[in-house]
Amino acid sequence: MASHQLLVAPPKALLKPLSIPNRLLLGPGPSNLAPRVLAAGGLQMIGHMHKEMFQIMDEIKQGIQYVFQTENALTLAISGSGHCALEAALFNILEPGDSFLVGVNGVWGQRAADIGERIGAQVHPMIKDPGGHYTLQDVEEGLAQHKPVLLFLTQGESSSGVLQPLDGYGALCHRYKCLLLVDSVASLGGTPIYMDQQGIDVLYSGSQKVLNSPPGTSLISFSDKAKNKIYGRKTKPVSFYLDMKWLANIWGCDDQPRIYHHTTPVISLYSLRESLALIAEQGLENSWRQHREATAYLHERLRGLGLQLFVKDPAIRLPTVTTVTAPAGYNWRDIVNYVMDHFDIEITGGLGPSVGKVLRIGLLGCNATQENVDRVIHALQEALQHCPRNKL
Amino acid sequence: MASHQLLVAPPKALLKPLSIPNRLLLGPGPSNLAPRVLAAGGLQMIGHMHKEMFQIMDEIKQGIQYVFQTENALTLAISGSGHCALEAALFNILEPGDSFLVGVNGVWGQRAADIGERIGAQVHPMIKDPGGHYTLQDVEEGLAQHKPVLLFLTQGESSSGVLQPLDGYGALCHRYKCLLLVDSVASLGGTPIYMDQQGIDVLYSGSQKVLNSPPGTSLISFSDKAKNKIYGRKTKPVSFYLDMKWLANIWGCDDQPRIYHHTTPVISLYSLRESLALIAEQGLENSWRQHREATAYLHERLRGLGLQLFVKDPAIRLPTVTTVTAPAGYNWRDIVNYVMDHFDIEITGGLGPSVGKVLRIGLLGCNATQENVDRVIHALQEALQHCPRNKL
Ligand SMILES: Cc1ncc(COP(=O)(O)O)c(C=O)c1O
Ligand SMILES: Cc1ncc(COP(=O)(O)O)c(C=O)c1O
Repeated sequence: MASHQLLVAPPKALLKPLSIPNRLLLGPGPSNLAPRVLAAGGLQMIGHMHKEMFQIMDEIKQGIQYVFQTENALTLAISGSGHCALEAALFNILEPGDSFLVGVNGVWGQRAADIGERIGAQVHPMIKDPGGHYTLQDVEEGLAQHKPVLLFLTQGESSSGVLQPLDGYGALCHRYKCLLLVDSVASLGGTPIYMDQQGIDVLYSGSQKVLNSPPGTSLISFSDKAKNKIYGRKTKPVSFYLDMKWLANIWGCDDQPRIYHHTTPVISLYSLRESLALIAEQGLENSWRQHREATAYLHERLRGLGLQLFVKDPAIRLPTVTTVTAPAGYNWRDIVNYVMDHFDIEITGGLGPSVGKVLRIGLLGCNATQENVDRVIHALQEALQHCPRNKL
Repeated sequence: MASHQLLVAPPKALLKPLSIPNRLLLGPGPSNLAPRVLAAGGLQMIGHMHKEMFQIMDEIKQGIQYVFQTENALTLAISGSGHCALEAALFNILEPGDSFLVGVNGVWGQRAADIGERIGAQVHPMIKDPGGHYTLQDVEEGLAQHKPVLLFLTQGESSSGVLQPLDGYGALCHRYKCLLLVDSVASLGGTPIYMDQQGIDVLYSGSQKVLNSPPGTSLISFSDKAKNKIYGRKTKPVSFYLDMKWLANIWGCDDQPRIYHHTTPVISLYSLRESLALIAEQGLENSWRQHREATAYLHERLRGLGLQLFVKDPAIRLPTVTTVTAPAGYNWRDIVNYVMDHFDIEITGGLGPSVGKVLRIGLLGCNATQENVDRVIHALQEALQHCPRNKL
C-alpha cells in the first residue's frame, strides 16, 4: 500500500463562523424567503423514500397543479434551478433533428436556442430586440415556415420586463401540430396563467421568485400531447437525471411503485411545499392583485422621480419585474452599487441583450408591498442625487 | 382577450401544517443534518451574485480541495445531487464515439454506463457480481483491450458495501492515456482518498452522506489532464446547466469576471459551507478514524447477533455503509419495516443487483457513534425476534 500524506491543510477561511448580511432582494430574483419558508429550511432530514416524503411530494404536485391551473398528471418538481427545468423540457421533448421554433426577445430565448442546438435540434430563432413580444401573426409565420415540433415562449421576460400574451397561442400551435412550451419562471403567481385553458403543453417555473423559496428546485408540467411525444421517443433523452419517465415514477405520476432514481432535495422540497401552501392560502387571484397593485404603485413613484419605464405599452408590462430605462448621464452600475452599499437593497442592471439599457426592480411574492416600494424609491432618489453624473 | 376561470381549487392537503417526524437515518444516505448545518438551513437569502456569496463559494472550493486532497483549480459544487455530478463529469469529459470503460460491480457503474450510452460514448462495462472489486490487473486488461479515454470506478460501492482500492490505478490509467473518474459519494470523509497523490482525474461526491448536509448539491474536481480534455472538445457538452466552462466561471475558477449562469442554490450552499467547515475543524484523519471505529464496533455487534457481513474480505469493507447478508428465513422488508415502525430508525435493503441479498446500515458523519450502533443493534435484535420466520 502506497503511503500518502495530508498535503492540503484545512482552509483558514472555513474556521471562521458563517455570517450572512441582511438584504432586501428587489432584483429580478431570487427574492427573500417568506417566514414560513424560512422555518421549513431549518427542519431536520427524513429519507427521500419515506412515506412522509412521498406525501410532501404529492402535496407539491397538487400545489403546482393549482398555481399552473392544470389537471395534468405529469406534474412535478425538478431537482435543479430554472435552467434545469428548461433542460428537462427540451431534453425530453426534442429528439435530434426535430425542428424547434424559439422566441428570442431576451436572454431566455437565447438559452433555449443554445440548449436546443446542443442536443441536435434544428433551431429556428425568431429574434426581436429586448422589449419586443410575439403576436399571433409572428408565431403563425414561424409555424408555417419551419413546421416545428415545439415553440418556446417566455411569459415573463425578466431581462426586458415584457409580459408575453398567451391567449390563442396554444390553439394556434396545435393547428400546426406543434407543442407550446412556456417559461413562467419570473411571472408565475404574479400574473394570470391557465395552462389547460390556454393549451400550454409544457410549462415550467422557478422556486425563487414569487414563491419566495430558496433557489434549487423548479416546477414543471406536461400535457397529454407532450407526454405522448415523450413516451413515443425513438431515442433516450441525453440525461438520466432529467429523464421524465424516471421522474414520473419517483413523483408518483405513473401509478407504479416508486423506485429510487436520485436523492431528491428533501429540505428544499419542505420549503417548496410551504411556498405552495402560502399561495394556496392566499389564493391566486389575491396574489395576482397584490403584484398588480404594488407594481402599479412602483411605476407611479418611478415616474415621480422622472424615470421612464422601458416597456412603452402598459398591456405588455410584467407585473413582477419592472425595467426602467437606464437614466441618461449615469453609469447604471453606480446606481445599483449605491442602493446596495447604502441601503442593503438589491436592484440590478440588464441581462444579456438588455445590459446597459435598463435597471431592473422586482417585487416578488412577499416582497411586493407598498413599504418596499417606498424603500427602494427612497434609495433610488438618493442614488440619483449622489452618483456621478456626466454632463453631456 | 379570452376569459378564463380558476378551475383548479387550492388543494386541501396544503392547508394543513407541515409536520416532519424524527428519524435516525442509518441507511446508506441521506444522513441526519449536523446541528450547525441545520442552523445554516434556516438563514435568510442573499443574492447568488453578491460578493458575500462569492466568498462562501470560494470557501466551499477550498473545503472541497481539502476533503479531496487536491490543488486543482477546477473544483466546485454542482447544483444537483450525486447523479447530477456524475452527469457533469461524463457530459464534459466524453464526446460521442469516445471509448468509456466502466467498472459495473453494483448500481453506480450501471448508471455511469447508462449515461455514457445516452451521450453516444462507446461503453465497455466490466461486470462483476455485487461484492466484487477491480484489481490493477482487471483494469489493465480493460485498458489494453478497449483503449478508453475514461475509466469509471466507485470508491464506496454503497449498494454492495465494497471499498475499491485506489492506489496505483491513476498511474496505470495514465500509462494507457486514459483518465480516471472516481465516485466517492458514499465514502468521502469516511475513508482516505488523496486525489492528487492517487492520480485521480475527476472526483465527485455528495453532500448528504458523511458531510451531513441536505441532498441537492455535490462536489467535483478536475485535474489539469481532465481540464485539457474539456477545453479541447470539438463539440459542446449536451447540457448548458452542467457546462464546465460556464460553471468554472461562476465558481471563480477561470480568473474572469463572474457572469450569471444559473441561480445557484444559495441556502444549500450555506449548509454545504458549514459541513465543510465542520470536517475542516475535526480534521480528515479524525473523521476517518471515527468511521473506522464506529463501523468496527457495528461489525462486532452484528456478529454478536449471529449476522454475517456480506463482504468477506475485511480489507475491502467500506467503513461508512455496511452490508449484512440478508438473514436466512426472513423477508428483509419485514426487518427494515420493523426497525422503522418501532424505533424510527432507517436501515435499508439492497439496491439494484444487491436487492434481496443484503441489509444496509450506514454510519455517516455525525451519525457514526457508538450510541447509534447500540440503538440500531437493539432495534435489529427486536426485529429478529418479532418478524415472521419461515421455517425452511
Ligand atoms: C424568465 C426566466 N427564465 C429562466 C430563468 C432561469 O432560472 P435559474 O436562474 O433558476 O436557472 C430566470 C431566472 O432569473 C428567469 O427570470
Ligand atoms: C456511491 C454513490 N454514488 C452515487 C450516488 C447517487 O447520488 P444521488 O442519490 O445524490 O444522486 C449515491 C447515492 O446513494 C451513492 O451512494
